[in-house]
Amino acid sequence: MRMYDLIMKKKHGGTLTDTEIRFLVNGYTKDEIPDYQMSAFLMAVCFHGMNEAETLSLTMAMAESGELLDLSAIHGKKADKHSTGGVGDKTSLILGPMVASLGVPVAKMSGRGLGHTGGTIDKLESFPGFSVSISNQTFIDNVNRMKLAIMGQTADLAPADKKLYALRDVTATVDQLSLIAGSIMSKKLAAGADVIVLDVKAGSGAFMKTYEDARALAETMVKIGNGAGRKTYAVISDMNQPLGYAVGNILEVKEAIEALNGRAPEDLSDACMALASYMLLGAGRVKEIAEARELLAETIRSGKALTKFAEFVKAQGGDERFVYEPDRFSKASLTGEVKAQTDGFISAMNTEEIGLTSLLLGGGRETKESEIDLTVGIVFKKKIGAKVQKGDTIAVLHANDREKLSAAASRLQKAITIGQTPVTPIPHILGVVEQA
Amino acid sequence: MRMYDLIMKKKHGGTLTDTEIRFLVNGYTKDEIPDYQMSAFLMAVCFHGMNEAETLSLTMAMAESGELLDLSAIHGKKADKHSTGGVGDKTSLILGPMVASLGVPVAKMSGRGLGHTGGTIDKLESFPGFSVSISNQTFIDNVNRMKLAIMGQTADLAPADKKLYALRDVTATVDQLSLIAGSIMSKKLAAGADVIVLDVKAGSGAFMKTYEDARALAETMVKIGNGAGRKTYAVISDMNQPLGYAVGNILEVKEAIEALNGRAPEDLSDACMALASYMLLGAGRVKEIAEARELLAETIRSGKALTKFAEFVKAQGGDERFVYEPDRFSKASLTGEVKAQTDGFISAMNTEEIGLTSLLLGGGRETKESEIDLTVGIVFKKKIGAKVQKGDTIAVLHANDREKLSAAASRLQKAITIGQTPVTPIPHILGVVEQA
Repeated sequence: MRMYDLIMKKKHGGTLTDTEIRFLVNGYTKDEIPDYQMSAFLMAVCFHGMNEAETLSLTMAMAESGELLDLSAIHGKKADKHSTGGVGDKTSLILGPMVASLGVPVAKMSGRGLGHTGGTIDKLESFPGFSVSISNQTFIDNVNRMKLAIMGQTADLAPADKKLYALRDVTATVDQLSLIAGSIMSKKLAAGADVIVLDVKAGSGAFMKTYEDARALAETMVKIGNGAGRKTYAVISDMNQPLGYAVGNILEVKEAIEALNGRAPEDLSDACMALASYMLLGAGRVKEIAEARELLAETIRSGKALTKFAEFVKAQGGDERFVYEPDRFSKASLTGEVKAQTDGFISAMNTEEIGLTSLLLGGGRETKESEIDLTVGIVFKKKIGAKVQKGDTIAVLHANDREKLSAAASRLQKAITIGQTPVTPIPHILGVVEQA
Repeated sequence: MRMYDLIMKKKHGGTLTDTEIRFLVNGYTKDEIPDYQMSAFLMAVCFHGMNEAETLSLTMAMAESGELLDLSAIHGKKADKHSTGGVGDKTSLILGPMVASLGVPVAKMSGRGLGHTGGTIDKLESFPGFSVSISNQTFIDNVNRMKLAIMGQTADLAPADKKLYALRDVTATVDQLSLIAGSIMSKKLAAGADVIVLDVKAGSGAFMKTYEDARALAETMVKIGNGAGRKTYAVISDMNQPLGYAVGNILEVKEAIEALNGRAPEDLSDACMALASYMLLGAGRVKEIAEARELLAETIRSGKALTKFAEFVKAQGGDERFVYEPDRFSKASLTGEVKAQTDGFISAMNTEEIGLTSLLLGGGRETKESEIDLTVGIVFKKKIGAKVQKGDTIAVLHANDREKLSAAASRLQKAITIGQTPVTPIPHILGVVEQA
């Protein structure tokens, strides 16, 4: 088999066999196929796409290119959740304890965030002492004992995807559905969960700007997951405004703790309920979604989810007193406000710009080596649909640098549009893909 | 300017500016743009193509990537001819002296053949002592004195094309019209002729299998040539059978000498007359093609073309006695015949296979390092349209190895189809592109 022929086949719109796809993924991972042949192939895929079988083969080959996490020592069906990335997304911190407190094991492997804000790991490291550098054995033991643990993504998880992604990133071949879906799902499959619930974001703050694109990605990923023998669901959610009110690491942790105390903003609550209920359904804990929602609401009312969260923070070395007394968290030294400059209704929030404003304040990583400032960020007072009067505070910025604060305030101001006609708020959950 | 953005632009069907194309050709030549980005770009070009302006920019950028041969010291308009490659093509040996004997300077830079048979240089080296390793000064002096000289292609002629071609060859991006045309024309433009006549072959023995593809390539190249300020014409000629009867280096030289003596097969004569007459027209030596044909025919009748050929061979160190006494040439030690196995009419000759049979005998190069056996080859007795009886000799093979002879005979037999109905022979000249 020659890579040349596989490039030619895809260039002419042909369908590659499983053997051919494995040949090229394995050859590339072992440096037997050079970058220049792979990039030509990837560009041909951008034009002709991959069918369902090819996409599954690609994903499986990438998943199997490195270590496959063996979670068989964990009792019960393991559920995992993955978001395609959004601004203000702190759902993992909330739904993890909710689901775990109902007895369904949540064994989560997570990467660090690159972009607007930190990832789940960065947020959890807001708790002094908290660590995700735990051994596989501790990870498994913790999940068995208390149904919830999180560990950092190992370097050897789907190395083919890592190498391919780096190549796609410099050859303008990122934005192809099968390649995107394969990249995400290869890591999820390698991480070993039995149930995978995907949160696919659509809107100005998401990779997929339209509902249609997000739905297509969701369907492709659900097909891959089910094709690989994992119960897979996708929730399509709105990202035309931040999720909840807080953006920035400690600010988001505090909002998550509020939510675990029963005081979640509606969109954040909707997101957690939707995602968590499919985790329970997939794991067989409930027969239907309505039942899941009742049980989940009870974990909040009873305080069981909050207790579970504290237990989890403590088990991974964190100071659980911060869960009950969030005022212990460090605060940024400066605050500034963005105010309405006219009467009207908030009609649009450029959410990618909001994410970049948080990055500008120091809340995210520009490169892998960047240090995150956990205290900075933005707390919104109003979101889309809100009626405002000139001078009303729309958002409070938290910063540690006066120049950055000023630049961020002016950037944020431009990201918010105030219109003259009433605006109906967008529902947060736009759709669900149960079986593609 | 970033290569990433140029890949993205072409991927989305955009048109690159001259500045952008020069940036990527120069960057690639200087190793500032990596292979993997260039191959992704080339694949995008395979899908979206390049328009006329882009193709001209690409060609000029490649032509100017290395040495530009300065032929300004040659008096008059210099004419050059280039063939896209065929089997049995010995036209340069014949039309060069014809055109030169009419006072039009023919300053030819030529590469060695890779494939079926040798190139023009290999054929000329059949004359003992003949050399193309002459200095630029000798080259210019010879053309000024006697209007005809040939030199080997320097390593620094269009290095960008050399590097790009090597990459296309391993990334399945060879067969794109603008890239093919640009590759050929960049070298022709760098070689400095004022008049360029292209022989674009179509058929089973050519890179372009159909007339339509050959015509499209011809039009693209003529546009480039005229766009670059050179008088450019293309003749589209048939390559569904070998040109003339001889295939193989010395065998072809002998057929060329026969032609210079007025005994050319019709197709070979047609080819030389068509190509040479456009060289004269382009150089302003004649006002119209009919006038050129009369003058050219006279160079043969008078023996002036033959004398010019002998003068040229001698001037580059060759033994000119071989021109007048072709029996002096070495002969292969073995011959074998391929005979008709049934009565009928020759209806098809797989010309690529015929070329490969000559290669098998040792008449061509499999790799750049291969040594050519100048004596071997094939002399046909019949071509398409000929009526044959079972047992008639169709071709005589010349070889120096009994095993190779036997393998070649059986391969050649399969390349020739005999049908039961009369066949009209194909005309050799299929079309001309004067102004695209």
